[in-house]
Amino acid sequence: MDQKIINRRDLDFMLYDMLDVESLTSRPRYADHNRETFDAAIDLSMKIAVDHYLPHLRKNDTHEPRFENGRVVMIPEVKAAVTQFIDAGLLAAAQDEDWGGMSLPTTVAHACYALFDGANVATASYTFLTIGAANLIKSFGNDDQRERFLRPMLAGRFFGTMALTEPQAGSGLADVRTRAVPQDDGSYRISGNKIFISAGDHELSDNIIHMVLARIEGAPAGVKGISLFIVPKVMVNEDGSLGARNDVALGGLIHKMGWRGTTSTMLNFGENGGAVGYLVGEPHKGLTYMFQMMNEARIGVGRCAVMLGYAGYLHSLDYARDRPQGRLPTDKNPSSPQVPIVNHADVKRMLLAQKAAVEGGLALTLTCARLVDEQDTGPTDEARAEALLLLDILTPIAKAWPSDYCLEANVHAIQIHGGYGFTREYQVEQYYRDNRLNPIHEGTNGIQAMDLLGRKVTMMNGAALKALSQRFAASVAEARAAGDPRLTRLADDFEAAVARLRHTTEALAPLIQAGETELYLANATAYLHQFGHTVMAWIWLRQATTAARLLAGDPHEAERAFLDGKFAAARYFYVWELPKTTVWAGILESRDDTLVTTADASF
Amino acid sequence: MDQKIINRRDLDFMLYDMLDVESLTSRPRYADHNRETFDAAIDLSMKIAVDHYLPHLRKNDTHEPRFENGRVVMIPEVKAAVTQFIDAGLLAAAQDEDWGGMSLPTTVAHACYALFDGANVATASYTFLTIGAANLIKSFGNDDQRERFLRPMLAGRFFGTMALTEPQAGSGLADVRTRAVPQDDGSYRISGNKIFISAGDHELSDNIIHMVLARIEGAPAGVKGISLFIVPKVMVNEDGSLGARNDVALGGLIHKMGWRGTTSTMLNFGENGGAVGYLVGEPHKGLTYMFQMMNEARIGVGRCAVMLGYAGYLHSLDYARDRPQGRLPTDKNPSSPQVPIVNHADVKRMLLAQKAAVEGGLALTLTCARLVDEQDTGPTDEARAEALLLLDILTPIAKAWPSDYCLEANVHAIQIHGGYGFTREYQVEQYYRDNRLNPIHEGTNGIQAMDLLGRKVTMMNGAALKALSQRFAASVAEARAAGDPRLTRLADDFEAAVARLRHTTEALAPLIQAGETELYLANATAYLHQFGHTVMAWIWLRQATTAARLLAGDPHEAERAFLDGKFAAARYFYVWELPKTTVWAGILESRDDTLVTTADASF
Repeated sequence: MDQKIINRRDLDFMLYDMLDVESLTSRPRYADHNRETFDAAIDLSMKIAVDHYLPHLRKNDTHEPRFENGRVVMIPEVKAAVTQFIDAGLLAAAQDEDWGGMSLPTTVAHACYALFDGANVATASYTFLTIGAANLIKSFGNDDQRERFLRPMLAGRFFGTMALTEPQAGSGLADVRTRAVPQDDGSYRISGNKIFISAGDHELSDNIIHMVLARIEGAPAGVKGISLFIVPKVMVNEDGSLGARNDVALGGLIHKMGWRGTTSTMLNFGENGGAVGYLVGEPHKGLTYMFQMMNEARIGVGRCAVMLGYAGYLHSLDYARDRPQGRLPTDKNPSSPQVPIVNHADVKRMLLAQKAAVEGGLALTLTCARLVDEQDTGPTDEARAEALLLLDILTPIAKAWPSDYCLEANVHAIQIHGGYGFTREYQVEQYYRDNRLNPIHEGTNGIQAMDLLGRKVTMMNGAALKALSQRFAASVAEARAAGDPRLTRLADDFEAAVARLRHTTEALAPLIQAGETELYLANATAYLHQFGHTVMAWIWLRQATTAARLLAGDPHEAERAFLDGKFAAARYFYVWELPKTTVWAGILESRDDTLVTTADASF
Repeated sequence: MDQKIINRRDLDFMLYDMLDVESLTSRPRYADHNRETFDAAIDLSMKIAVDHYLPHLRKNDTHEPRFENGRVVMIPEVKAAVTQFIDAGLLAAAQDEDWGGMSLPTTVAHACYALFDGANVATASYTFLTIGAANLIKSFGNDDQRERFLRPMLAGRFFGTMALTEPQAGSGLADVRTRAVPQDDGSYRISGNKIFISAGDHELSDNIIHMVLARIEGAPAGVKGISLFIVPKVMVNEDGSLGARNDVALGGLIHKMGWRGTTSTMLNFGENGGAVGYLVGEPHKGLTYMFQMMNEARIGVGRCAVMLGYAGYLHSLDYARDRPQGRLPTDKNPSSPQVPIVNHADVKRMLLAQKAAVEGGLALTLTCARLVDEQDTGPTDEARAEALLLLDILTPIAKAWPSDYCLEANVHAIQIHGGYGFTREYQVEQYYRDNRLNPIHEGTNGIQAMDLLGRKVTMMNGAALKALSQRFAASVAEARAAGDPRLTRLADDFEAAVARLRHTTEALAPLIQAGETELYLANATAYLHQFGHTVMAWIWLRQATTAARLLAGDPHEAERAFLDGKFAAARYFYVWELPKTTVWAGILESRDDTLVTTADASF
């Protein structure tokens, strides 16, 4: 674990023991793969992450990109690192071979990508935003757009961005006002201002392809009038060669508290007559397309939060094992040797809290990635549709839960370091700053709460929640079948939490029928937490069930300790965290209106 | 509220309406004071804080002190600011007049000091550390030490530090090994290394007086062999003039994530034969003296946490009122104007969470300061003894609760700002970084938990908890007497929480008798939280009772809104936070041993 990015045994446990990723190789798309090829991709990723991403983690923070003479200047290590990533074929890892890809399952690709997040999230962002933009073109672009833009993106010659946010609109995309004026040649002229566009300018690639939300002249107001455009930084000729600069200008760089290595930009489109843009798909469907891509992007944000938490956990674990301080409460002899602080109960508490958050978060992330594979390659229409339903309802959790609780994990990582944790000589303070972004971007956690309670729970008559409940029940049955009293106790507590969630959901439902939308949504964040903790209890029940199965095989000592650790973290989560669901249930079921009735003047 | 440090009406509410500070003026020590003199001190403090501390808040962060050619170089604004503070007589605000003081009650002095914490905590720290060191000499030094060191400290010519922590000992003061060798002239030669000494070097004053914990040769091991010494940076002659440099060297500056304007130093004592030190009080009683000063120092840390939270709250409130974004859930017309985000329920949640934490935290801080006044000037021996008991048991809460929950308030303040909150263009990100120190220094919150459960709850047969319970009961009686159903409901919930705390405490007690110290203390942090939330429920019950009394006087509209706000925050705390005590009670009462039994190898 010297790399302090991940416990490789833990990653293997999730991929192979819990999620049975190997079983995917029986499907035609992954027929050329086996555990060895999966491991090779992970090994390769780990090597590049450790050799080329990790070494400039701190330098990325202390030498943030600068805007000089109209150009973005950044440390050379970033370009060197992403070049390694591209040369290894990782940009297209999950793509088919005819797109230069490795046809890896999404689950394995996420496992690989997670290592880069953990090593250097800011440098990793450039490629992951490119993957997100590429997937958008792949799904909704036409053949010409794919050849002209997608192919060079997957080859790493062009990078990509998602250009949604505008200064006056923020989270409220209904108020996007970037304009698109149709031209005779079928293209559009785009003008408007975007803000917080990550990787919006740099010189890491020959070109930058902005995926821009804009409003075609005369489009309806609100989200139903938003279209999606490809707007390249540099024009691309039909033969693929580069042309003139497009009318896209860098308005300035934004200086952030953390995640500093990724440029965050203000972009001005059309200062000189209009930037050339190409409509993706049909007019006015831009947000629909974006939403279809959102699942993966949001899971990606959750993954970043997890890996920043995971790195902090490993740093603080290492510190706790090395740092002698104090004695156990039973030892009253001040001349006896100090013990490593990992032995103190309160330090164990902070380690278990981190372990529960980051290993739980990673298992959730990979569970979602596994559902993407199911959605893409599931054996039947029903299986694919069920996977999509599950993804829809789990996505707000996969984004918000890690970004809340793995940030809290970073708080603990600092605390274990004591005064040292507050200094810039130790890595944990940077994780705490970097990770603060995750509850904000790709839809704030407040937006996730509204999405969960306002859309995902109610859609299709509650079909998604029903599908999830079936998964819950299957996991309970599996846990009970093991006949292990520890699992039975977890299963009992989990079933109670599931019943509570059902009760809470049913208690709220009449408010929609009564048209009391505001009150229905008022405590959506409490619902997000209750739902999230219930899902995490499921994740930990499954990890414990998996651990019990492996323990039954009489493993060697280190493996046994690792598997016992899964039970310890599960127990910690069930004792310290899961009971909080009763608090949130209480708020929701009483339909508390404090948040609606408190007047502005009373603050 | 343009200063964004405090809501002055709120401060007055606490001082005059809730804590009745005016009543102190009937006591001989404060006979020369009245509300006008109190207000004058607060007004003066506010003016200096706004004019001289606030303007370089950001610059203090971006231009941290540097170590150049053996000297500490810092921005000139710091010296200018502390000079204003000193010239206004604020260093000695709470001292008697024969020490150059204003004889202000501690409560009022804390209110004044809080404004500097809120304006610029790093610059404020230099003077507050000096006050702490000065109080130590005042209480335990001899007449010569007082004249030679204390008088110039109170005059602002000398500054002070608390030099406790050593690299190999950290929180475990039993392992302090700085040595003190007695000399024929009665002085000592001190040698050893100290770390994380705030304000340990600078050129803001003519001299720096270090209050150093060290072990006299041959002293017993552990905390019972620690003595307290005055070790000046520059020798002070008998006539008060300055002599040669003492053997105290700056080993280096520590670079922190936040609170950057305060130098954090490594100090080397005795590199050239030994630094001259003067024993304070008796040998081997150093830690006892320190503990007697601890109450005020720890309340001071809590106050800093509160004020960083309070500033963040006011910034985010201002932003929420100014920032139009989105529409209410009931408004489906995308062409209608955007509403200021203060109208969104989830933003109100984050504002109420902050309000409950920071106004609650400030009321707790001032309640403790009020107890210091009672301890110093209470009318009877019994009253003074009771005040000390209450202070003893409330101090760990006053330190830990704000440093946990006002840090969480800063998390909310950033979230309300959205992407802007993550940038360095807005102030809230700095509060989030600065405030992260408070759970660590002056005894980590884990240490506070051990202090509360391991010492304060059990000492003198539970006398402190008994005294606090009587205060709880008195507040319940007062709340019920008002006959306001809202208060009655709060009183009901509060009584249930108090009963729960009693039950939890009683459930743990047998573990001590059985000698199961490790299990007794294992979940001390859960106890700290349960206890802390119960205390904060008391604080909010008292604020609500005070508000109800004032509302009965038919106040004008703005005042009514302010008082309604007290009820809203109280209700928020009782609905969203107080029920968490059931979770902690569950952990504690089940005597859960997860934190004891989890093996190192399982992480």
